[in-house]
Amino acid sequence: MPNPNLKSHGRLPRKPRARDLKIPFEGTPGPLNTITDVAGVEVGHATIIRGAGKLVVGRGPVRTGVTAILPRGRQLGAPVFGGYFALNGNGEMTGMAWLEESGFLSSPVMITNTHSVGVVRDAVIEWQLREGKMSQPWSLPVVAETWDGYLNDINGFHVKRAHAFAALDGARSGVVAEGCVGGGTGMIGYGWKGGIGTASRRLEAKDGGYTMGVLVQLNCGLAKELTIAGVHVGQILSPSGTRSGAERGSIIIVAATDAPLLPHQLKRIARRLTIGLARTGSVSGNGSGDLFLAFSTANPPLAPVRGKSGVSRVPMLSNRRMDPLFTAAVQATEEAIINAMVAAETMSGIDGHSILALPHGNLRSIFAREARE
Amino acid sequence: MPNPNLKSHGRLPRKPRARDLKIPFEGTPGPLNTITDVAGVEVGHATIIRGAGKLVVGRGPVRTGVTAILPRGRQLGAPVFGGYFALNGNGEMTGMAWLEESGFLSSPVMITNTHSVGVVRDAVIEWQLREGKMSQPWSLPVVAETWDGYLNDINGFHVKRAHAFAALDGARSGVVAEGCVGGGTGMIGYGWKGGIGTASRRLEAKDGGYTMGVLVQLNCGLAKELTIAGVHVGQILSPSGTRSGAERGSIIIVAATDAPLLPHQLKRIARRLTIGLARTGSVSGNGSGDLFLAFSTANPPLAPVRGKSGVSRVPMLSNRRMDPLFTAAVQATEEAIINAMVAAETMSGIDGHSILALPHGNLRSIFAREARE
Amino acid sequence: MPNPNLKSHGRLPRKPRARDLKIPFEGTPGPLNTITDVAGVEVGHATIIRGAGKLVVGRGPVRTGVTAILPRGRQLGAPVFGGYFALNGNGEMTGMAWLEESGFLSSPVMITNTHSVGVVRDAVIEWQLREGKMSQPWSLPVVAETWDGYLNDINGFHVKRAHAFAALDGARSGVVAEGCVGGGTGMIGYGWKGGIGTASRRLEAKDGGYTMGVLVQLNCGLAKELTIAGVHVGQILSPSGTRSGAERGSIIIVAATDAPLLPHQLKRIARRLTIGLARTGSVSGNGSGDLFLAFSTANPPLAPVRGKSGVSRVPMLSNRRMDPLFTAAVQATEEAIINAMVAAETMSGIDGHSILALPHGNLRSIFAREARE
Amino acid sequence: MPNPNLKSHGRLPRKPRARDLKIPFEGTPGPLNTITDVAGVEVGHATIIRGAGKLVVGRGPVRTGVTAILPRGRQLGAPVFGGYFALNGNGEMTGMAWLEESGFLSSPVMITNTHSVGVVRDAVIEWQLREGKMSQPWSLPVVAETWDGYLNDINGFHVKRAHAFAALDGARSGVVAEGCVGGGTGMIGYGWKGGIGTASRRLEAKDGGYTMGVLVQLNCGLAKELTIAGVHVGQILSPSGTRSGAERGSIIIVAATDAPLLPHQLKRIARRLTIGLARTGSVSGNGSGDLFLAFSTANPPLAPVRGKSGVSRVPMLSNRRMDPLFTAAVQATEEAIINAMVAAETMSGIDGHSILALPHGNLRSIFAREARE
Repeated sequence: MPNPNLKSHGRLPRKPRARDLKIPFEGTPGPLNTITDVAGVEVGHATIIRGAGKLVVGRGPVRTGVTAILPRGRQLGAPVFGGYFALNGNGEMTGMAWLEESGFLSSPVMITNTHSVGVVRDAVIEWQLREGKMSQPWSLPVVAETWDGYLNDINGFHVKRAHAFAALDGARSGVVAEGCVGGGTGMIGYGWKGGIGTASRRLEAKDGGYTMGVLVQLNCGLAKELTIAGVHVGQILSPSGTRSGAERGSIIIVAATDAPLLPHQLKRIARRLTIGLARTGSVSGNGSGDLFLAFSTANPPLAPVRGKSGVSRVPMLSNRRMDPLFTAAVQATEEAIINAMVAAETMSGIDGHSILALPHGNLRSIFAREARE
Repeated sequence: MPNPNLKSHGRLPRKPRARDLKIPFEGTPGPLNTITDVAGVEVGHATIIRGAGKLVVGRGPVRTGVTAILPRGRQLGAPVFGGYFALNGNGEMTGMAWLEESGFLSSPVMITNTHSVGVVRDAVIEWQLREGKMSQPWSLPVVAETWDGYLNDINGFHVKRAHAFAALDGARSGVVAEGCVGGGTGMIGYGWKGGIGTASRRLEAKDGGYTMGVLVQLNCGLAKELTIAGVHVGQILSPSGTRSGAERGSIIIVAATDAPLLPHQLKRIARRLTIGLARTGSVSGNGSGDLFLAFSTANPPLAPVRGKSGVSRVPMLSNRRMDPLFTAAVQATEEAIINAMVAAETMSGIDGHSILALPHGNLRSIFAREARE
Repeated sequence: MPNPNLKSHGRLPRKPRARDLKIPFEGTPGPLNTITDVAGVEVGHATIIRGAGKLVVGRGPVRTGVTAILPRGRQLGAPVFGGYFALNGNGEMTGMAWLEESGFLSSPVMITNTHSVGVVRDAVIEWQLREGKMSQPWSLPVVAETWDGYLNDINGFHVKRAHAFAALDGARSGVVAEGCVGGGTGMIGYGWKGGIGTASRRLEAKDGGYTMGVLVQLNCGLAKELTIAGVHVGQILSPSGTRSGAERGSIIIVAATDAPLLPHQLKRIARRLTIGLARTGSVSGNGSGDLFLAFSTANPPLAPVRGKSGVSRVPMLSNRRMDPLFTAAVQATEEAIINAMVAAETMSGIDGHSILALPHGNLRSIFAREARE
Repeated sequence: MPNPNLKSHGRLPRKPRARDLKIPFEGTPGPLNTITDVAGVEVGHATIIRGAGKLVVGRGPVRTGVTAILPRGRQLGAPVFGGYFALNGNGEMTGMAWLEESGFLSSPVMITNTHSVGVVRDAVIEWQLREGKMSQPWSLPVVAETWDGYLNDINGFHVKRAHAFAALDGARSGVVAEGCVGGGTGMIGYGWKGGIGTASRRLEAKDGGYTMGVLVQLNCGLAKELTIAGVHVGQILSPSGTRSGAERGSIIIVAATDAPLLPHQLKRIARRLTIGLARTGSVSGNGSGDLFLAFSTANPPLAPVRGKSGVSRVPMLSNRRMDPLFTAAVQATEEAIINAMVAAETMSGIDGHSILALPHGNLRSIFAREARE
């Protein structure tokens, strides 16, 4: 479902996405097949690519960045409800104690490399102070990460406050750049080049017509595990010169929806993202930080705390109506992961390490053959 | 705060409660200082006391029972929101997987002895089938327990379906029998006779005027730990012939409120019950099953699942307005525990084991002295 | 991998298992491809099939039972370490508060129908008392369930103490009966007849040579979701007269291993069982009670509590060596689920409801075709 | 139990501690009554006090700092086992996903102000890289916080990498500076000046002779709640000009022990810290980030991952021997909190805000009177 007529933001060359390769994903995507199909959600990236050749810590080469997801864009207003799940906690997602306690996601969601979580976190506070967007006198920002140290001078700490600001200030609705951008710049997926991917599903009107959008920062999986739309691709294709050995990756998955879900219902969504990941072949290895977040934009501005009652009326979808949302979250996660790989391009980084892009031609052949059967 | 004019259910002799002994509890109780001060909540007990002397397993002596808490009485209608906390999980509270998942408490809350959880659980289903009260084609009842094997022939399995039915059918609003009744019949608290206790707090109008009610089945604590209203009573009084050794008890605490709290907010209440318990001296020993449940009756009947949207509007109190509820839950828990001990009477059970009642006269003296200072 | 020479227990006709249909599962099973490949683990079933025709509650027809898993058989000795995960909590697994708190699984694991959890739970205590196997003065048995009310008179409460005793007393190592037996008797999987299934994986010597065994009570999934070894079978085959509508099933998955894992490591295993389930197509619907348990038999008898120190030395596998166990748990879960369906036979129950067995011939054709490609 | 002969580190004037005021704490402390009584544990502080008068964001006044706890000092070696509990999650403690997953605490524990968590986190990685102390190719440091914005220019981001390095490099065993030092510099406790406090308990030989040490960064509680050794001091003393209104504080509690506890057992310890906090009067208000961490130094260096088996033998204390540790953790927490207040001195900060020290004379009088009774 290519969207040839969509205006890019001037920096997004039209590239094929996984669907363009005739991969038979299930379900019906939203108009852009992105997390921004959920009204209000904005995404921005700051990408840092600099230098080549031998690693000199502090100098580079640099292959990293920051991605920002703003649940309600820059509109003032209520925080959104959120829920969290740690499938495998070899990673970081700050801010989760407050999300779990309050039910609210009160900050943007940032994704960067493992060793830059701190700088991005404090920068979010600075940005919130500037924008006047803190809901308490303090802020507990949400920043997640995956490890890009195979391609990037991660111990050189090249992400700066300015990069976080750029990702936040550049966030917008509409088309989302995928692949080697933002936090996903130096990431690896199933032995191939990974990075940022996104997808969405639109529910049927009888199921409420809600949208479920997903964005992933893909950095996990072994080449031999890769599975796409049920085809065990890892048995057919493998990247030459692939890194062997144990899982050293991770995946951050963020799901957004406009379905009216309470915090405990969003935890249910977050747990389902596991199933989407599972469909692409990972068993969530020990080295992987597989941390998932789901939020809903459906709650209205809340009753003022200092108001008469402090009581809001919040919409809640019946638990018995959640199955289509579960299916949508699973399907969108699967497609977002493959989108990340399809969009990513071959990249070389520190010490000449190189990671190949998943070859589009081979995928087309595989799925053309499957379709004939 | 005695309530001399209240009608008892014909089986409740007017006994002093902890406040009658001039113990200076903090906060303002509801009209009856019981969990039933929360509108709609009903409590029933089935008490089984039979035989005396040497233990013959299967024959007795029997000192046990069942207590039932019906969040909305026998009215049909919406399940209530609920939240759970396990301070120390050496115990059982069935039904918690579904409470955690759905956010709903869809059954009565039953409390009995450890080895009768099963019979009571299945009996609740039978009762729900009879009453037509199941919200799914199946039921996952909530049944909790503490261990009464020091006084009771617990391995004789004397609780039967009929006892569960009796507790359920006998449930009503109004005064709640305390001490050696229902599930609390054979229980022990801080070395003294324990059992069922209850208390409540009414918030000020400016804080919403909500009611927080608590009911405990007290079976935990060492004699030396007992603390009442800040006085380390365990250093002053100890039961003669007290059992020594490790904690073998447990405490079940159930908090009810009409404040409009969502499931994740009720988990916050459930965690605070720890603080109420702490005020009475326990450190929650390894042998203790300290399992806490909080529910709110504030949500209206939910939108019909098969209706057009399946979306309900549920009231939610701002997190920032919760502090008075936290304080109320702590205070009501503390008082409910002491109420259990004050109401309980000396009991002897199997093999001549005997547990003394906390002596009212000594307590009066202690708190009269404190008041003079 | 048929095992033609294995002695059955006189009640197990040699039936084809999933592998016999040439389904290309990954990984290397243990000798029997059962949970009992883990040394010491014993399984027993009590199956109750009685009556036919119209439902008369309390009379039947009855299609239900009890399955017992004994982690160390009937040997006295140390409890085993255990870990739990609730993927979707619309179900019951009693005993989880104590498992989470203590790290120990101190009772057999029982699986039955939803409305018989109670009777089985109390019966386990009675059995433990008889066998002298309680590790505390009280017991908190582990009993899980799925709902068989489409075929079985579940509200007739036909499971009795004697059935629990029969399952426990009949438990043994060796071949495990699958399909419509024990707790799985009346269950449904992906619209086809479900029930009990089991499988195992043996790790390579370089990975420690450990065994991972899995047993499932399969009652979940929609017909259209069914996926086997990557083939979306639900798009090819569907049971005629299949029930439509929402998920009303559940799945209990129990994993056993002899790898030396601590309780928190077993929770990691339990979470991975999700991925095995995902491979068969389920998205874990709202109506499903998907509760998973993992245990390890590797810890030796513990230091006596009353001994000098109370300190045991327990073996712990490095987290970095766990990936092969994750993969094994995923693979064994997938195969156990398909084994349940392959073993189950067409069954009719209450009111003439009938559920078809997954047709072996069609599966053979599908996988023969896949193999040719 | 003053320790007049202890050598300070040249910056610790001998000040009275809570015991010196004749407060009757229970239990037996270790030699220094500090967390460093647990062998190997080292503590360092970096304190930043600069400027006075009107707040100019970015200029000051500055009243903040960083505290570092090194579980095994700077020795290379095994990570320690750890466990976590969030009593109220209005706060941050990074690194918890990996602690929960792996069971290991693999980094120092840092405590600072809310808006400096990020800079400290990344600085820990830099320090670990320099020291060669990372156990994976990446690091997920543990950094916790409380909010000092009433006295400190918290939005001026005055904590720098160098402060984190100073706290880490300055860490040592022995006496621990308390009060307005390190991360505790600008903190407030129960309306009085708060900050860093520490205490310890030594178990009797029959209970294993273990040490339990606690360190708190106290910033929580309302003046009216303050309770010391059972005396409701908040009803007797209140700071003049005290801030009114809701809880805006938090408390971080870290418990260390040499008792051989596994990760799930350390979670049990972490939950008990609630009870120690409860004894000082807090109900853990909505605005409070009450995050607790417990670790054990008892495990030996682990088997090398690349070794033959990857299996270590780790000592585990029986659950049934844990009660004295629970009591010790509760008692040490209570005393550490009061120690923080007794050590802290009156401080003025931004905009002339001033917070009084808890007056020693009044406390002496109160407890002298209590002792006479």
